[in-house]
Amino acid sequence: MSEAPFIKLKANAKGRVLAGHPWIFANEVEELLAADYDGQVVEARDRRGRMLGSGIYNSRSQIIWRRLAAGSISLDGGYLRTRLSDAVERRATAGNASFRRLVWSESDGLPGVVVDQFGDTLVMQVQTLAMETHRDEIARILLDLTGAVEVIHRDDASIRRLEGLDRGVSTRSGTEWEPRWMTIDGFDYWLDLMSGQKTGFYLDQREQHAHLGKQVAAMVAAGRRPRVLDAFCNQGAFALHAARAGAAEVLGLDSAADAIAQARLNAERNGLTHTTFEEANVFDWFTANRTATWDVVVLDPPPFAKSRKALAGALRGYKELNLRALQCLAPGGILATYTCSHHMQDAELRQVLAGAAADARRQVRVVEFCHQPADHPVMLTMPESEYLRGYIVRVD
Amino acid sequence: MSEAPFIKLKANAKGRVLAGHPWIFANEVEELLAADYDGQVVEARDRRGRMLGSGIYNSRSQIIWRRLAAGSISLDGGYLRTRLSDAVERRATAGNASFRRLVWSESDGLPGVVVDQFGDTLVMQVQTLAMETHRDEIARILLDLTGAVEVIHRDDASIRRLEGLDRGVSTRSGTEWEPRWMTIDGFDYWLDLMSGQKTGFYLDQREQHAHLGKQVAAMVAAGRRPRVLDAFCNQGAFALHAARAGAAEVLGLDSAADAIAQARLNAERNGLTHTTFEEANVFDWFTANRTATWDVVVLDPPPFAKSRKALAGALRGYKELNLRALQCLAPGGILATYTCSHHMQDAELRQVLAGAAADARRQVRVVEFCHQPADHPVMLTMPESEYLRGYIVRVD
Repeated sequence: MSEAPFIKLKANAKGRVLAGHPWIFANEVEELLAADYDGQVVEARDRRGRMLGSGIYNSRSQIIWRRLAAGSISLDGGYLRTRLSDAVERRATAGNASFRRLVWSESDGLPGVVVDQFGDTLVMQVQTLAMETHRDEIARILLDLTGAVEVIHRDDASIRRLEGLDRGVSTRSGTEWEPRWMTIDGFDYWLDLMSGQKTGFYLDQREQHAHLGKQVAAMVAAGRRPRVLDAFCNQGAFALHAARAGAAEVLGLDSAADAIAQARLNAERNGLTHTTFEEANVFDWFTANRTATWDVVVLDPPPFAKSRKALAGALRGYKELNLRALQCLAPGGILATYTCSHHMQDAELRQVLAGAAADARRQVRVVEFCHQPADHPVMLTMPESEYLRGYIVRVD
Repeated sequence: MSEAPFIKLKANAKGRVLAGHPWIFANEVEELLAADYDGQVVEARDRRGRMLGSGIYNSRSQIIWRRLAAGSISLDGGYLRTRLSDAVERRATAGNASFRRLVWSESDGLPGVVVDQFGDTLVMQVQTLAMETHRDEIARILLDLTGAVEVIHRDDASIRRLEGLDRGVSTRSGTEWEPRWMTIDGFDYWLDLMSGQKTGFYLDQREQHAHLGKQVAAMVAAGRRPRVLDAFCNQGAFALHAARAGAAEVLGLDSAADAIAQARLNAERNGLTHTTFEEANVFDWFTANRTATWDVVVLDPPPFAKSRKALAGALRGYKELNLRALQCLAPGGILATYTCSHHMQDAELRQVLAGAAADARRQVRVVEFCHQPADHPVMLTMPESEYLRGYIVRVD
């Protein structure tokens, strides 16, 4: 019996891997394996030869190894079915119905596989070479497990280049997926799953859309019909929830013309005619509208800090944004503020918000601590698995 | 017109106060005021004489000044009524019915005043000299605002000594408050509000009791009737919620005989006969029961780290505890783990849990991030206002 291929770790990496982190970087091994092993299962061992786990290997990637399991495994149909069943079962109790993230990479033990379910359609992204070779099998098993009928392969992310993979978008059936209305949490959205942002809709903020709606409804119940600003509105989900909950007026801003067009379409379709959407740079808009007063402001910007290096600048911009929002809130108003960069961790976000509160001379109380939903599981031993944080605060 | 009394801050304290922190320590001012000003409203100024806020003063306390407002104020009936109305109104939307924290010290702009509502009874703690002089007025206003009929003055906390205050327990009516059954979230509890721990019941964990019940119910719905261990059970709230949600078996542990007696009484009264409570030291119990397997473990220990100095030892104990819990969980099991010390912040808690997960060689995914409920508001500019954190994790 031939020995399984393995990489030998330098001492500096061993501690991190033993502490549960699932990645090994190219500069952490004594020697890379031949390119023949790219896309294969390879074991990791310490310098004494002790097993540290099995993972997928790709010498072309900076992350040359991603753990699958602590022991020896074969990456075959049986293994994939077990991992995929676990992923589906893990979400069975979440009550997310049929719009949810179904598989999420390392958090589901399938590094590089991201699948979102939109009713009877699965949107699948593959971002590792090993999983690319099993792409069709994974799709087949998921259709079987969920009863969905179509898979859109969104293999257009630039991150695929890091693994030496081609880019493209296709469907499993070979038929173009026509954009259509789909109902998520009681609202109709016009979804273009073959070319929309991310996999077509920010499923990770569904719970927050609902939380915001509840905050607006509570204000209305207390006799206050709030004016709501949704400063990075995208397709308008926060704005629509606020409008239906009884906001007197809702304004959504976004710098992307197509997002604004889609948000308007969504508002009209849902009969929420007291919402307005404007194409605008949010910083410029705040500067031009210093005297405006709002009862609720939502800040759900795109990732400011795409890398650790960019963090300092991102924190300055993020503080400025939150300061302006605080300054335009009426007493007793609500700020819902989010960050979706894993580089901005909770301590940094708190510091930014506390600093903005002090500068604005406002008393800020936490109403709700916001986190990733359970269908985007955070692994305690992998900080990179957490990227979404926020606070709903009351501003006096 | 005579000038208001004021304290002048040293440069080192000014920054912190300007950043929104509401306390000034004795060693942060140029000179203390005469003891005549103890219990009075005093202004804080920087060395150039610029106003930094109005607060209550007590030269006998280490925290000699606690901010009330940014500007000048009089601590009179009108002022108290405004702050108390704000506190009640702030909780109006929380849906906590009549069992809730009603006033919480700095977080409600009333430093040293803590009031919990238990139906028609208010339990009030006063821990600052200034508020002590307004105790009866505060009680009168709160009875008026809430419609409650009795106030229990729980002035037995040792912290009162730091302000030079006497200790004792009394009722507003003068009549002893007899222990009785009260219904909280659908469960009957035998409450002794004149001598129980804290103000009689851990209202701050009500949401978590419900979350745990939901997790157990979800397991049951998935065909698994869990065995549940509630390792620091106190009056048994987690255990009761788990039992009613369909747990096959529930064991509650507590080192206090009176807590165990009360928990048993509560279980019997609620007809939850498949719960068992044992007086035990949890560490010893885990040592003696290494082979036991559980589907759900709840760890809600008393504060391990009562001071920053005690933190390192507390973290070791806390990690050991979580490690033992992880080791005895069946695959797919749930750990609900909490800390109630503000010295143990999120970064430290994560490190402990991730370390325990790595040592136990278990995959740990966050199911729910747990925080203080909205009736115990966290002030972003005052880290001390946050003491309760936790995680519900799934352990594979």
